[in-house]
Amino acid sequence: MTSRQPSIAHSLTIRAKYANKVGMLGNITSAIGQSGGDIGAMDISEAERDLMVRDITVNARDVSHAKEIVDTVKQIEGVHVVSVSDEVFRRHKGGKITMQSKSPINTRNDMSIAYTPGVARVSTEIHDNPESVWKLTVKSNSVAVVTDGSAVLGLGDIGPAAALPVMEGKSQLFKELAGVDAWPIAVNTQDPDEIIDTVKRISVGFGGINLEDIAAPRCFYIEKRLREELDIPVFHDDQHGTAVVVIAALLNALKIVDKKIEDLKVVVTGVGAAGVATTNLMILSGIKNILGFDREGILHKGREYGDNETKAWFAENTNPDNVKGGIDDAMKGADLFIGLSAPGVISVDQVKSMNSDPIVFAMANPDPEIWPEEVEGIVKVMATGRSDYPNQVNNALCFPGLFRGVLDAHSKEINDDMKLAAARAIADGVPSKHLNNDYIMPSIFDKSVVKKVASEVAKAAKESGAART
Amino acid sequence: MTSRQPSIAHSLTIRAKYANKVGMLGNITSAIGQSGGDIGAMDISEAERDLMVRDITVNARDVSHAKEIVDTVKQIEGVHVVSVSDEVFRRHKGGKITMQSKSPINTRNDMSIAYTPGVARVSTEIHDNPESVWKLTVKSNSVAVVTDGSAVLGLGDIGPAAALPVMEGKSQLFKELAGVDAWPIAVNTQDPDEIIDTVKRISVGFGGINLEDIAAPRCFYIEKRLREELDIPVFHDDQHGTAVVVIAALLNALKIVDKKIEDLKVVVTGVGAAGVATTNLMILSGIKNILGFDREGILHKGREYGDNETKAWFAENTNPDNVKGGIDDAMKGADLFIGLSAPGVISVDQVKSMNSDPIVFAMANPDPEIWPEEVEGIVKVMATGRSDYPNQVNNALCFPGLFRGVLDAHSKEINDDMKLAAARAIADGVPSKHLNNDYIMPSIFDKSVVKKVASEVAKAAKESGAART
Repeated sequence: MTSRQPSIAHSLTIRAKYANKVGMLGNITSAIGQSGGDIGAMDISEAERDLMVRDITVNARDVSHAKEIVDTVKQIEGVHVVSVSDEVFRRHKGGKITMQSKSPINTRNDMSIAYTPGVARVSTEIHDNPESVWKLTVKSNSVAVVTDGSAVLGLGDIGPAAALPVMEGKSQLFKELAGVDAWPIAVNTQDPDEIIDTVKRISVGFGGINLEDIAAPRCFYIEKRLREELDIPVFHDDQHGTAVVVIAALLNALKIVDKKIEDLKVVVTGVGAAGVATTNLMILSGIKNILGFDREGILHKGREYGDNETKAWFAENTNPDNVKGGIDDAMKGADLFIGLSAPGVISVDQVKSMNSDPIVFAMANPDPEIWPEEVEGIVKVMATGRSDYPNQVNNALCFPGLFRGVLDAHSKEINDDMKLAAARAIADGVPSKHLNNDYIMPSIFDKSVVKKVASEVAKAAKESGAART
Repeated sequence: MTSRQPSIAHSLTIRAKYANKVGMLGNITSAIGQSGGDIGAMDISEAERDLMVRDITVNARDVSHAKEIVDTVKQIEGVHVVSVSDEVFRRHKGGKITMQSKSPINTRNDMSIAYTPGVARVSTEIHDNPESVWKLTVKSNSVAVVTDGSAVLGLGDIGPAAALPVMEGKSQLFKELAGVDAWPIAVNTQDPDEIIDTVKRISVGFGGINLEDIAAPRCFYIEKRLREELDIPVFHDDQHGTAVVVIAALLNALKIVDKKIEDLKVVVTGVGAAGVATTNLMILSGIKNILGFDREGILHKGREYGDNETKAWFAENTNPDNVKGGIDDAMKGADLFIGLSAPGVISVDQVKSMNSDPIVFAMANPDPEIWPEEVEGIVKVMATGRSDYPNQVNNALCFPGLFRGVLDAHSKEINDDMKLAAARAIADGVPSKHLNNDYIMPSIFDKSVVKKVASEVAKAAKESGAART
């Protein structure tokens, strides 16, 4: 992975011991600066007349850059590196989430109410009136964040245990942004039917299921069956969360380029989980001319897709002129490029061949299909999945508010109407007077957007008949 | 269910409206008092010159008694009951537990550390060094509280959804008493192999499994297989938690009656989950003469047990003289009666026929095998499962500290050595100078006992080779 800027994701604290002489600190900071390290806090850990120990916090670009910076400091005459601590690892120690009791249990009375004997009446009530489980238990506000660890971030099939920190992070976002009690459920099987059985069995205690980082095409089958067989909402965020935020970005980009959505020619690279779901929502939004690419080229009717039903669906429902050929041809005259694939799959020349006011969403993570600086002045609206460029298209804009709305409405499902409602609410999160090329997406941390997404999703749930309340 | 004393488990708040005249409040409180209601707080909700609205909190004995009290108040001339709220239900609204992020996520930096991109390095570390999952995730401190809802409290097979409030209560106790992050997992299957598969698959994210309220005999098979097939501790609390606290009670009772454990004659009624596990720990503690009863009578070699391996084990390992017959014969000369069965299964005459200084642990819930007041002056040491009599034998004395020790030691299992260490630590929680007939068990809320149990269990884990650390 390459990262172009030093970032807190690679933040080190170097504890350096050196003779307390004029010029020593300058030697250290210049050495770090020359290595490209970004110095933050510098605290004195120990100071004597002859000796100084300082904790110097430095952001690096990546793992090898971090190592390079430490090595540089080690080589300075008279400086001893006592220890190096890593902020990211320090903050993961013991895990990032915790369970809390809503009330203290300090006395027999507390226990008689929360546990035996009082709880027996509550259990009896749920047994007699099954719907009351939604009022009297954590099910009312909880979501299982389920993964098999088969497609984690850009890391691939690293397994369920290694996926846990990601699921914990996701759970934190659920809670901190939208007050949802999410708990990670990592399953150590990659068999689709076993995953389905497991999720069905544990669904009792949860109000919703967020599937996460499960590889395509099995993610489609798993989600489809769980949606059919469970009476609580099931949402594969990598598919639909991405689709929702892409549509939100598109709605706002179109306000800038002033084109009609039904006239767009769209090129999509990557027809995995995210590409297919995004294409589905684009079709529902009125887009007719979509060309999709996988590693074997453009998807068209007549190509063989074996048992990959999703790609067959894609070919059937896109590419109205049944175009074949390479990406060069496809990009000519395109209004919108959506990259959900891999770094560097399109060239500057291809972007130049697009229609006027081209829109490019290059969302491969962490390195996009094309870097923004390469097409500056060529592209009208540019968005990526990255936080260090403008217009970050980030699922975290969708899932917290979406599930908040879903739980508030006691929705049985998350349907397309609800997804489109979420997309519109996110787009509306950027006030029209502020909307511009570099500001088409609201901040993830804007709680008013989360609220708006929640209320619009709840409304759509009611109007579409998905809500229990 | 009968409860002899009004209790907070049946606490009502009656909102009564009446003409603001001298004597009216007296009429209400006397009526409640005459109905046997125990009046607590009385708050004024609204007061005008002519009108008074009061919230009167009353503890009742049980559901029908609560109804009776409300009806009595309703019948008072000039009093209108506006509403009746129920404290237990009020405290269950929306569930009793919540998930919390250990750090706020308010900025991009927070997100870069807890989630992408920072988290990718942590996931990579766990992928490269699988043991690091114990340091870097919530697994280090979390326990799944797993039930199929088949044997919940005294309520029986009420199903997994109705069992949720109990599992939440248990999770609260785990956290409040011992800092363990427990999360309820209710499974909607009662097929033992399906339960086993489910628990195995979701075990990735948990440091331990607490099985709860699963009916015998399937609980034995489920626990056995999970213990064999998982590398984290699996503990069926209804079996072993009960066994540990009974042994703790026994150790202290023996100090009072001054008998040797190996000389005891013990009668056990109920050879379900708790009875079998308790008997196992009694045998390991040196007791030789144990007679067990199920509904068909005394367990002995030669009786047919079909495919019930547990009862066959019981018959094989107890009853050295292979006694047959009824409970009348068995109780004659017994030193200790352990009831883990049903209300009223023994009589006062049978208790009278026991050896000198008889010990009776009558732990059927909520109504014991014999009530303490029936055998006052006959029994030397009496214990029950109830909080409203002295010497409550309560699992909550064991599981929080036990799991605290298990997680602290990164133990792979919970073995008999560890259970016996827990029992001794609980018994030692009553200082010898305070030990007496009515005080053989420490308080559940005594944090020093939890600490002692945890450290003794961790020590036993290390000494028996179960600990990873």
